[in-house]
Amino acid sequence: MKNSRRDFLQKVGASALALQLASITSWGAKRETYDGPVLRVAILGLGNYAARVADAMQSCTKAKLVGLVSGSPDKLTKWSAKYNIPAKNCYNYQNFDDIRNNKDIDAVYVITPNSTHHDFILRTARAGKHAISEKPMAINVKQAEEMIAGCKQAGVKLLVGYRMHFEPKTLEVVRMRKEGEFGKIMFFQGLCGFRIGDPKQWRLKPEMAGGGSMMDIGIYAVNGARYMTGEEPIWVTAQETKTDPVKFKEGVDETIQFQFGFPSGATASCLSTYNMNGLDKFFLNGERGFAEMQPSTNYGPIMGRTNQGELTQPATIHQAVQMDEFADIIFHDKQPPIPVDGYEAVKDLKIIAAVYEAARTGKKVSVTV
Amino acid sequence: MKNSRRDFLQKVGASALALQLASITSWGAKRETYDGPVLRVAILGLGNYAARVADAMQSCTKAKLVGLVSGSPDKLTKWSAKYNIPAKNCYNYQNFDDIRNNKDIDAVYVITPNSTHHDFILRTARAGKHAISEKPMAINVKQAEEMIAGCKQAGVKLLVGYRMHFEPKTLEVVRMRKEGEFGKIMFFQGLCGFRIGDPKQWRLKPEMAGGGSMMDIGIYAVNGARYMTGEEPIWVTAQETKTDPVKFKEGVDETIQFQFGFPSGATASCLSTYNMNGLDKFFLNGERGFAEMQPSTNYGPIMGRTNQGELTQPATIHQAVQMDEFADIIFHDKQPPIPVDGYEAVKDLKIIAAVYEAARTGKKVSVTV
Repeated sequence: MKNSRRDFLQKVGASALALQLASITSWGAKRETYDGPVLRVAILGLGNYAARVADAMQSCTKAKLVGLVSGSPDKLTKWSAKYNIPAKNCYNYQNFDDIRNNKDIDAVYVITPNSTHHDFILRTARAGKHAISEKPMAINVKQAEEMIAGCKQAGVKLLVGYRMHFEPKTLEVVRMRKEGEFGKIMFFQGLCGFRIGDPKQWRLKPEMAGGGSMMDIGIYAVNGARYMTGEEPIWVTAQETKTDPVKFKEGVDETIQFQFGFPSGATASCLSTYNMNGLDKFFLNGERGFAEMQPSTNYGPIMGRTNQGELTQPATIHQAVQMDEFADIIFHDKQPPIPVDGYEAVKDLKIIAAVYEAARTGKKVSVTV
Repeated sequence: MKNSRRDFLQKVGASALALQLASITSWGAKRETYDGPVLRVAILGLGNYAARVADAMQSCTKAKLVGLVSGSPDKLTKWSAKYNIPAKNCYNYQNFDDIRNNKDIDAVYVITPNSTHHDFILRTARAGKHAISEKPMAINVKQAEEMIAGCKQAGVKLLVGYRMHFEPKTLEVVRMRKEGEFGKIMFFQGLCGFRIGDPKQWRLKPEMAGGGSMMDIGIYAVNGARYMTGEEPIWVTAQETKTDPVKFKEGVDETIQFQFGFPSGATASCLSTYNMNGLDKFFLNGERGFAEMQPSTNYGPIMGRTNQGELTQPATIHQAVQMDEFADIIFHDKQPPIPVDGYEAVKDLKIIAAVYEAARTGKKVSVTV
């Protein structure tokens, strides 16, 4: 059985999609009346997820795919035809820095293997373009901090593809939590996993991925624990399990359970895995109520319920909403409901580093984000 | 808000109960045609759970409540009237040992604070009566092993009130797992908790309870991890959180997260708490399927689904089925689908001890059961 990550994430939501497709809306966008500035985006790295973003962007109101950057001439040919991108907006990795002279491109969305984000984002910044990184933003905290500094120095914005931060059911749960509708938060659980396919892919190469499942699907549990509880962890414990050391080499985690303690006394229990399908569950438990989401972070439709009943907020195309919102953040300094900047990414990376340290040492690791 | 354990467990199932009440059946019992021996039971300790057992036993076919043991003359008077128990079958804790001369009683079901099981079970055995203990069977492994030895020496059976071991939806999931319908088992999750009420109750006194939530609701997660996966843990990690050190004194755990590793490489993630309501979830995940149960261990109706759909096995009165099955085990050496003997209890207690050790030391603790 050969599953790709995308296939799995698609399958999880497939049955529910039919039910909700009619209600899909580009949340936050005013499709008919918008006459403000449009964020003109080049995508750098034309893999599976980039294709999903490009397709989604066809529904955007405030953002538009206008440029391509790839090491593959074939891909550039195919994509430029498909998305009607002029040749002058297509770059390879050698001439990419010339993008600084291209007045028709505002931002570059880097969707490449984790280890390459650092360099591409810094080159984007030096070219004077706003920088958007897929998550995890980097393979370690040091890289991430350098990326923040580089973008700051260049006077460009740095945003990270936290698409769940704009997902309506997620935001409703966050709103309910903020307004105390669950009472004091006691517990969060995030189970995030899928069975990874092709053993030769970059995600299974530690030098490119910076780790294993934690640097991919695991970040959803880490980030989810933070936005669902509204707290930052102060301690981390973790337990790693490896059943297939051939596929999951040294430095590539297959399955990690991890736990967080928060200042309030609330705790979290999470699991990140590359070796189990069907894991896409969030559970937030408070003294007076709860939220359950399943699927909780796939491409949607997200589904869930709280103690008050089913969550009925509309399904969205996550990447379309994200890019429209990014336009507002870049042009109008709009404050997103949950941060999507480099500092948010650093927090996740600090916590992931603590998870790895806790798994390696078997010790409870203190963390300050 | 003053909740008792019983109140909570009742409430959780209340709304679903109405739907399924019509289908409640004393599973495993042949109500109309039974003409075999009837297990004549005395209940020792007349508290809330004993009342539930006594009421449930009114539905039994193969077991009958015939005797009472209590330190409270008032309770003996009230209960003997309610359940039509002759005075000659009523005992206090002083004259209880005379039960050896009572030919109308076959077994004593000890439903008292955990720390007292050891003594009462041994007295029951010495009186030549079959011994039934509520769970946890004892407050430590040493006590439990002495209870097994004592019952063996006296030639009586020792059974433990593992009511879930006869619950039809639970057994269906166990059957599916045994027959490989979920594929290789990868992960079990058990979240078990309720918010305990009266701070003066024995469950919050470490010398009587032998601990805190782990020695009460937590044993459902421990035991469930074992019967759901069909494996015994080989390592344990655990993290304790205490938010209310006044109510949950030294030696009384409020909330413990714990994780198991199994020989196959499967893992478990569990939570036991006395400070959160709404936690009654099991999740079993295999390579080809899953089971979700919620509620998973309360007094029912248990509800759940697998990858094949809703579980539709009938709701039962757990305690009634348990006592009918205990009759068959005692009289006919019937082998229950999941063990309910003293050895089963020792395994749980060894694992609970490992959980406490792991929580105390912060270390991964090896366990052999």
